[in-house]
Amino acid sequence: MKYIKSYNPFNNKIIGKLGCDSKIDIDKKIKKLRKGFVYWSQLELSKRISLLRSVPRKILEKKEEIAKLISLEIGRPIKESLISIDMIVSRLNFFLNNSEKYFKEEKIKIDEKTTNHIIFEPIGAVGVITGWNYPINIPLWSIIPALICGNVVMFKPSELSPLCGLKIKEIMRSAGIDENIFSLVMGGSEQGNYITKSNIDMISFTGSYNVGKKIYQVSSTNIRKLILELGGNDVMLVLQDADAKYAIKNLIMGFTKNSGQACNNVRKVFIHKKIRNDFINDLKEEIKKLEMGDPLNPNIKIGPLKTQKQIKKVKELISNKNYKLVYGGEFKKNILEPTILSVNLKRVISLREEYLAPLITISEFNDINDVISIVNSYETGLTASVWTKNIKKGKDVAKRLDYFTVGINKIGGSSDQCPWGGRKKSGLGFIFSKMGFIQFTNVKNIRIVK
Amino acid sequence: MKYIKSYNPFNNKIIGKLGCDSKIDIDKKIKKLRKGFVYWSQLELSKRISLLRSVPRKILEKKEEIAKLISLEIGRPIKESLISIDMIVSRLNFFLNNSEKYFKEEKIKIDEKTTNHIIFEPIGAVGVITGWNYPINIPLWSIIPALICGNVVMFKPSELSPLCGLKIKEIMRSAGIDENIFSLVMGGSEQGNYITKSNIDMISFTGSYNVGKKIYQVSSTNIRKLILELGGNDVMLVLQDADAKYAIKNLIMGFTKNSGQACNNVRKVFIHKKIRNDFINDLKEEIKKLEMGDPLNPNIKIGPLKTQKQIKKVKELISNKNYKLVYGGEFKKNILEPTILSVNLKRVISLREEYLAPLITISEFNDINDVISIVNSYETGLTASVWTKNIKKGKDVAKRLDYFTVGINKIGGSSDQCPWGGRKKSGLGFIFSKMGFIQFTNVKNIRIVK
Repeated sequence: MKYIKSYNPFNNKIIGKLGCDSKIDIDKKIKKLRKGFVYWSQLELSKRISLLRSVPRKILEKKEEIAKLISLEIGRPIKESLISIDMIVSRLNFFLNNSEKYFKEEKIKIDEKTTNHIIFEPIGAVGVITGWNYPINIPLWSIIPALICGNVVMFKPSELSPLCGLKIKEIMRSAGIDENIFSLVMGGSEQGNYITKSNIDMISFTGSYNVGKKIYQVSSTNIRKLILELGGNDVMLVLQDADAKYAIKNLIMGFTKNSGQACNNVRKVFIHKKIRNDFINDLKEEIKKLEMGDPLNPNIKIGPLKTQKQIKKVKELISNKNYKLVYGGEFKKNILEPTILSVNLKRVISLREEYLAPLITISEFNDINDVISIVNSYETGLTASVWTKNIKKGKDVAKRLDYFTVGINKIGGSSDQCPWGGRKKSGLGFIFSKMGFIQFTNVKNIRIVK
Repeated sequence: MKYIKSYNPFNNKIIGKLGCDSKIDIDKKIKKLRKGFVYWSQLELSKRISLLRSVPRKILEKKEEIAKLISLEIGRPIKESLISIDMIVSRLNFFLNNSEKYFKEEKIKIDEKTTNHIIFEPIGAVGVITGWNYPINIPLWSIIPALICGNVVMFKPSELSPLCGLKIKEIMRSAGIDENIFSLVMGGSEQGNYITKSNIDMISFTGSYNVGKKIYQVSSTNIRKLILELGGNDVMLVLQDADAKYAIKNLIMGFTKNSGQACNNVRKVFIHKKIRNDFINDLKEEIKKLEMGDPLNPNIKIGPLKTQKQIKKVKELISNKNYKLVYGGEFKKNILEPTILSVNLKRVISLREEYLAPLITISEFNDINDVISIVNSYETGLTASVWTKNIKKGKDVAKRLDYFTVGINKIGGSSDQCPWGGRKKSGLGFIFSKMGFIQFTNVKNIRIVK
């Protein structure tokens, strides 16, 4: 048997050793899911919802334990890990409370004798393959909607957060969801590839563009439905009339949350040149207050970066001669102090892959049109934000940005009721909201002549 | 320059010779579209709609001429061609009348200070690549919604119906839509491949599974949005309590329309054994009344098959020893007389590719559960129908069928207001209805804090 090892990025200590699934194991698990689908898909929606209600309940019961595991395995500051548990519980409850409304059969009268009924049916076995950086939240926000819709789920966590993956399985089992309805596959790219090449009916993937592209490619064989969220490089546009204090407060949260390791962390800040210097000075003052260290310490705001690959990438960016170090830039073991680089507007590198770190680049601009054309030329299009007191102007800029989620005086994050996804190479399809839920179903049109 | 020749399938006479686009031509056309997108996408929705209103108007003005061309080029009986013009005009007007409603910005209040605005934006350049069998209607029902949504369109008609493709271009130009907004690419698989491998932002394809699979595969590079409609093999389930007369009337229309060359033509009929014999006898009586011959003759119901490839395939099916000839089976040149084959329930071949011909197979059943499990095992899942006086029972069966569109006492066709697409290897995504329209847009979530 092959094994993967889980390590604590704060001290590089091994915290778990887990056996990988073989191809035979995966085949067996798919077979069980196919069997389970017959039962689960035919269960009434209300029954599925009432069974799944115990998932958020079980999570809340084990809140401290799960939060500690997240912080240990991926290095997220414990305070944030605790908040993330509240967030996923609230999100899952939102799904559970609204899905009956979402799935209501729609009747459309065509003529005197004919009425069409639009209904939403389960698809089959859904593969949920996710990254390591939100190892509890991101998997669950595909797993639970997929299950509510009547699908069965095969979940493969990242090999960088296998213990959190195992915890999800534990929660599911304690909530009474057995291996015929939900199964966990432990492993790395070998296992991911094998699932992808199987006849599984749909895949919801969160991770890198390169892996997403591969999944897309092999999925042509069975014309498979996909939801892909392939990361971003969030841009923040601070106009001359912005409430700078408010913007700075949000920027701090926006670029340091999860130690900079979220897909929607702010990465590239563009500030009008008239307010640039004051903005940077005030920002530096705020950054100084952020404490770094062991993620299990509740006072800590900045923890370690998870992977040496990311650390290498960040070091390269810091030493890139187009960039000038304005603040930070030093690593203490795996912890990067919050870092500001300044760079000429035209030299901001468009990285397709994310650099996951508490690091921003700042560029000044005179004409907002220049910024818009530069950030629209990037291959990613997940989140962006515009900061201005003039909402109308903000909305004009927002409409011109080729990004899925754009905040005006708000970081580009997600809301339960609204779709969430990426444009361009940041993704395909979306989740959340009624439109997002429907992506986990097969739409059917039943045309009835009485 | 390479050429394609268009021929009349009734007499195999060449009716046109058209120059193919080279790769350089296609590149130039894409470049023009990219330029046109800036203008067209920024035009107000109401302006785009009002400009496009002249498309159905121009079609109606040339109704006779276009219908005649369809009949000449693909062999559709002229009476049907004329009706199809009325249908596409009515469908386009439906799109134009409803899209403002569909695209209304949705405001979602998140908290006291925050409101999210969900808006729908153009995607870019959309490739519309279609088959030959509905050479005016099917292209237009992707082209016009794509344009309404603010996209520019590159259209490649099938090399089997290039004159109809040219006619669409002529209509667009006469309606004032120039080459920066809509372009036509003439050619075959070489040109189709080249468009597919380009950086075009989205493709709406109607055609075979094999081509659809290729399009899916190469689209991974830019994580491209796709709508694929890859044909079906319609199944008709006639229960014991069906109104047989009514079912037969619909079956005749359902399997002979377009001489059997529609994606949703009825192909496999399953009849309860208690009513089978009477059903077949009555059906034969009705079939005898159908006149065959030159599609331009208004009395004609059955015209020629378009391709020799299809004719070969149909001949193979007729001579397959699992099938017993009940009626018809003879070709007069390229015209197949309406044909009934009977076959044991368990020996109905599941063809992934369609056989496009006025031909049905009939199987008798005792237990509807057997039929459901057989037809659900097919790789296609476009349309199906159930015939019964008991609507509740019909709906139960409909829900168990793994098909996108299921009629109860109605053939599984499309309606403007309802989604239309295929399950399994019959397709990805869907068109029509609000949900279908949205597939030609990029959804954006603008989160505003006031």
